[in-house]
Amino acid sequence: MKTVKIKLRQKVDRSYPIWIETGLFKKIPADLKKEFGVRKYAIVTDTRLEKIYGQELIENMQREGLEATIVSFALGEKNKSLATIEKMANTMLKQGHNRQSMILTLGGGITGDLGGFLASIYMRGIDFVHVPTSLLAMADSCIGGKNGVDLKEGKNLLGTFLQPKKIYMDPYLLSTLSPREIRNGLAEVVKHGFIADAEILKHLTKHAPRILEGHLRDLTDLLVLSCRVKGKIIELDPTEEHGRKWLNYGHSLGHAIEQASGYKLHHGEAIAIGMNLENRIAFNRKMLSRKEVHTIETLLQLLKLPTEIPLDLSTTTIVEALKHDKKNSSTQTYTMVLLKKIGSPKIVDDIQEKEIQAVLSKTAKNSL
Amino acid sequence: MKTVKIKLRQKVDRSYPIWIETGLFKKIPADLKKEFGVRKYAIVTDTRLEKIYGQELIENMQREGLEATIVSFALGEKNKSLATIEKMANTMLKQGHNRQSMILTLGGGITGDLGGFLASIYMRGIDFVHVPTSLLAMADSCIGGKNGVDLKEGKNLLGTFLQPKKIYMDPYLLSTLSPREIRNGLAEVVKHGFIADAEILKHLTKHAPRILEGHLRDLTDLLVLSCRVKGKIIELDPTEEHGRKWLNYGHSLGHAIEQASGYKLHHGEAIAIGMNLENRIAFNRKMLSRKEVHTIETLLQLLKLPTEIPLDLSTTTIVEALKHDKKNSSTQTYTMVLLKKIGSPKIVDDIQEKEIQAVLSKTAKNSL
Repeated sequence: MKTVKIKLRQKVDRSYPIWIETGLFKKIPADLKKEFGVRKYAIVTDTRLEKIYGQELIENMQREGLEATIVSFALGEKNKSLATIEKMANTMLKQGHNRQSMILTLGGGITGDLGGFLASIYMRGIDFVHVPTSLLAMADSCIGGKNGVDLKEGKNLLGTFLQPKKIYMDPYLLSTLSPREIRNGLAEVVKHGFIADAEILKHLTKHAPRILEGHLRDLTDLLVLSCRVKGKIIELDPTEEHGRKWLNYGHSLGHAIEQASGYKLHHGEAIAIGMNLENRIAFNRKMLSRKEVHTIETLLQLLKLPTEIPLDLSTTTIVEALKHDKKNSSTQTYTMVLLKKIGSPKIVDDIQEKEIQAVLSKTAKNSL
Repeated sequence: MKTVKIKLRQKVDRSYPIWIETGLFKKIPADLKKEFGVRKYAIVTDTRLEKIYGQELIENMQREGLEATIVSFALGEKNKSLATIEKMANTMLKQGHNRQSMILTLGGGITGDLGGFLASIYMRGIDFVHVPTSLLAMADSCIGGKNGVDLKEGKNLLGTFLQPKKIYMDPYLLSTLSPREIRNGLAEVVKHGFIADAEILKHLTKHAPRILEGHLRDLTDLLVLSCRVKGKIIELDPTEEHGRKWLNYGHSLGHAIEQASGYKLHHGEAIAIGMNLENRIAFNRKMLSRKEVHTIETLLQLLKLPTEIPLDLSTTTIVEALKHDKKNSSTQTYTMVLLKKIGSPKIVDDIQEKEIQAVLSKTAKNSL
């Protein structure tokens, strides 16, 4: 018996800054040049944003002497696929991008997921930065290096963990969002508050009306708080092996509700309902007090987020979706992140189906 | 302007052992259980090897109480694609594999590339081990964590760097290989000798006839030497940023010759010719002595590897392939790894097309 040992101990530093500033969009090209040098850039964006911001960005970059190309795709969850990745990789090749090129993602969550994944596998990995344009992407999905595409069997089943080199957040880009899109993003922000940071909750409670109207100063402050919470959790667990799972609070039920609605409910709306219902499970288990369940429900309503399952959604469909999600688990019980109190999440792995049924039935609320 | 810093400094240890032993194949299941515990395993292999070794391996694993499934694909470079990856990922999902599952690749270079890539993106990355079955895969391609698939524009354009957790090499598996397949693998082994290790060259010179006949003891010793050289280079440069490029010795011309032959020449045969011709470029530049060019050519011939371009291959086609390979480079000149002397490679980036033309013409040999 012979053994050859390959020794690969390394110190790696994948730290990166998030720069948050109203009006930052115009400053990006000069900063890219300063931080990353004169490279060739591929701007990954959807065909709608390509027209709104993409062309402007290309011109600003050219003014700085940076060569940039657009790599666009048509929006829609169905295009979050390996086929789109292959198409975009072929486009980048034709445009002459090599291992020194850098990807800049410009868009919402799907764009970040696709662009980050493309960067992680193009010529075995190239650098990338995020320029998120939705509140959901800024407050949550662009931070942490998760990326991926869907398979027909489920969402985000293929992907990698790869951190961006920098994130540029310009709250001004949020001013074109509809009120519903703002609310959708707020759900993940308020989730960060419930699992880890009372300060976010105070800020939201105090400034809810102005935030909902898209007041830039308040949104900026909120983004800073939200990024700090997400950042702290990522730092503890970059590849989702333990603590990062806290971020799934509201998502077990929320994801099933989103699917069961045929995606008529947006992600943030579905997880708002998910958080509220998961709190009721925690209440029934005597983990969370009636008062705290009420506090969370009130804040969600203040943010004009739904907290109950729409009447036209059958609970059977939701349970089906839940079962589909856990089909690869070997246990009979369900795992969820429940709150012991506000700011203290706990991973609970022995939840029975009947506990879920209890809170899904329309009378559940009265039991509080 | 606000900045949030995400701090991600880590010490990582991706070291792994290569276990080389005749008859090792039967011992793999017990070792997997000891090293990696009772997990679910996905055996990635081609449909031909599935019958020869796959079923036997599954049975051996079941005897150890390990659950294992086969994830197979049809051999052929055209199946080294994202479409095959997607198909195999869907198979793994249907078989119930989750983030705790482990992939075991069983096969040659293409299998290792596909299985390693699948492991690096399935549910954002799962563990894997290699069980190489060809000499080329054992001596070279399975070591170092490179994986990937082809795009229609070129080979290995999408992929990642991800190290296996262990490599199991059983030289006994080589006994079913044809003499041509053995020679094909020897080309990369002898390359390791030319760029870094005189001991390999001595061993090959002394034992060539027995190695060509597939003598297991000599092949085992040779594998140990070859793995050490490749391992040392990987350790210095795990993600191919500098020194690892030395491994491309013979490959610039070799790859173009392989393509121009329509893959009638196998990879090892093409790079043997590539090494010999690149040496002549080095000789013309007064880098390598006539004697050393001759030594290398003689050793290649002793291993029954070709050293000249086949008469029916047009030099124009080879030059076309070379140009296609470098289409994304901004320079007019070519980059190759040339030898200063045996054991001392150098990356040379100012090679003119006429220097290549000179050695491609059939009379070039006489100029030595």
